[in-house]
Amino acid sequence: MRGAVMHAPGDVRVEDRPDPTIIEPTDAIIRLSATCICGSDLWPYRGIEALDGATPMGHEYCGIVEEVGSAVTTIRPGQFVVGSFWASDGTCEICRAGYQSACTHRTLMGTIGTQAEYARIPLADGTLVATREVPSADLVPHHLAASDVLGTGWFAAVAAEVGPGKTVAVVGDGAVGLMGVLAARQLGAERIIAMSRHEDRQKLALDLGATDIVTERGDDGVERVMELTRGLGAHSVIEAVGTQEAMLQAIRSCRPGGHVGFVGLTHEATIGGMDLFMSLVHLHGGPAPVRRFLPQHLDLIADGTIEPGKVFDLTLPLERAADGYTAMDERRAIKTLLTV
Amino acid sequence: MRGAVMHAPGDVRVEDRPDPTIIEPTDAIIRLSATCICGSDLWPYRGIEALDGATPMGHEYCGIVEEVGSAVTTIRPGQFVVGSFWASDGTCEICRAGYQSACTHRTLMGTIGTQAEYARIPLADGTLVATREVPSADLVPHHLAASDVLGTGWFAAVAAEVGPGKTVAVVGDGAVGLMGVLAARQLGAERIIAMSRHEDRQKLALDLGATDIVTERGDDGVERVMELTRGLGAHSVIEAVGTQEAMLQAIRSCRPGGHVGFVGLTHEATIGGMDLFMSLVHLHGGPAPVRRFLPQHLDLIADGTIEPGKVFDLTLPLERAADGYTAMDERRAIKTLLTV
Repeated sequence: MRGAVMHAPGDVRVEDRPDPTIIEPTDAIIRLSATCICGSDLWPYRGIEALDGATPMGHEYCGIVEEVGSAVTTIRPGQFVVGSFWASDGTCEICRAGYQSACTHRTLMGTIGTQAEYARIPLADGTLVATREVPSADLVPHHLAASDVLGTGWFAAVAAEVGPGKTVAVVGDGAVGLMGVLAARQLGAERIIAMSRHEDRQKLALDLGATDIVTERGDDGVERVMELTRGLGAHSVIEAVGTQEAMLQAIRSCRPGGHVGFVGLTHEATIGGMDLFMSLVHLHGGPAPVRRFLPQHLDLIADGTIEPGKVFDLTLPLERAADGYTAMDERRAIKTLLTV
Repeated sequence: MRGAVMHAPGDVRVEDRPDPTIIEPTDAIIRLSATCICGSDLWPYRGIEALDGATPMGHEYCGIVEEVGSAVTTIRPGQFVVGSFWASDGTCEICRAGYQSACTHRTLMGTIGTQAEYARIPLADGTLVATREVPSADLVPHHLAASDVLGTGWFAAVAAEVGPGKTVAVVGDGAVGLMGVLAARQLGAERIIAMSRHEDRQKLALDLGATDIVTERGDDGVERVMELTRGLGAHSVIEAVGTQEAMLQAIRSCRPGGHVGFVGLTHEATIGGMDLFMSLVHLHGGPAPVRRFLPQHLDLIADGTIEPGKVFDLTLPLERAADGYTAMDERRAIKTLLTV
């Protein structure tokens, strides 16, 4: 089959890779309906995260089940399925508490590489959620978004305890931040402040439910949020960047007793103990347990309530994956969908 | 009046200070029934926190109201009152949300110095809680503990979402950690793991409700908690030290999706973004809103349900405050009560 492989920072090639096969009896093989490039794929692309040799890329996926292992009981060939970037058993105590991304048997899909024609999905019964019917082509991008960015933005909103009557600030206007805006809207927030300096992203944020746009960053951004909240700060803040500046901006934009949900990959950030101590905010985040939200999200997509696929503003064939990386790296695209 | 003043690290003297007077119409003057030395007073004593010249010390207090300002409506002379180390108005949006320690008009009692015969209490109506009757002398230490350590340990337990059926680990065997054990017990925790290397503190922890003692620290301590929780980690962890090691130990002892409540003054600690990200724990803490819990705590003390004054293992007259500091600095005392 064909699949994307990163050979070095900035060097992504689509090449022949072995067809995946069932390894464990709990595996399934899917034929991808579409796949995509994640903001987190840019970390190794930019050389910030080390690569361990040539690496198959991609961890987002949806598609048709081709084959299942002998121990798979709930997933059948022919079903259209969506799963998360962490394969999870769905039965351990951590999964049952809703933290499937920390499943005691979890496997990171990034080690498998779903920017390809086919993929092996471990722990298929726990990991995959099947739709009632195979969706029409126009709904595929929404399902693909549910595999990561939608659930990640949603988790950030849940971690930030977004709810009716609350003011939410969203730090980061990438795909995840925009999905945080969508989630905040669905969760009933009264006011949603999107922090963005890019006109196209501001427009999408407003379309997805933002009520206010703040273009300032850092301390100036904090000051604007304070002005909009009578000096108290937002009740809920979503951090969807992962830099030191964004994390501090999020904490400082939040009122005492408020909640910061963070899902930006915090490679570079350290949090000063006293900054956090004096802020009196709640802080929760990490690799999103996307699987927790999948059944609900597939329902919301099926009935047309949400259209998370709007974050894909560039569509390319898989063979042109390298161009998709370049476009996202140069911020010409929010998120690239790869047709298979 | 007589009062304790810190002139330099290690140099505390009890000397004549001016009697406090009503400055704002919202003030009250109280005659202290007892006062005490806080673990946080050791930060400047040890030279870790800078002193701005000779500083009146103390922020914990209970006593009899002597006089009130013209705008005070609910507090009357003759009442026995307890307040927190943050004076708070009780009416702003942050107070009403239960975060009185971040009141928009807060005043830190540490700037007033309650290790003295009398003290001025700002925002008396919001800050002070009066008991139904003047308590007997044997109950005074329990009320004094409610002014800070009890509420701080209790807040840590609430921040750590302690509740029935949960396993709680308590990092820190000082007065606040021990009150965290007491709070965990009251909040219905199933298992309470106290981390302590000191026999006298272990004994008190067991007396207050601990079910297990772990003597190891750092990574070894984390490993022991993992052994006691089938490799998952505690549901709730109370951090009551404030060092880098203690904060990391707390985060690593907590299961994904679990809650860390931290109240140790985190001067020295920085939290690595990726450590926190991958842990998937909830983190909440800061200066405890002790005032939130005071009415409940005074009831629990009045009916004999809790005896938080047990943390005072040394009682000295105010004139010997310096000896109290030395005893706590040298870890010969958990917490020193000063009779006035």
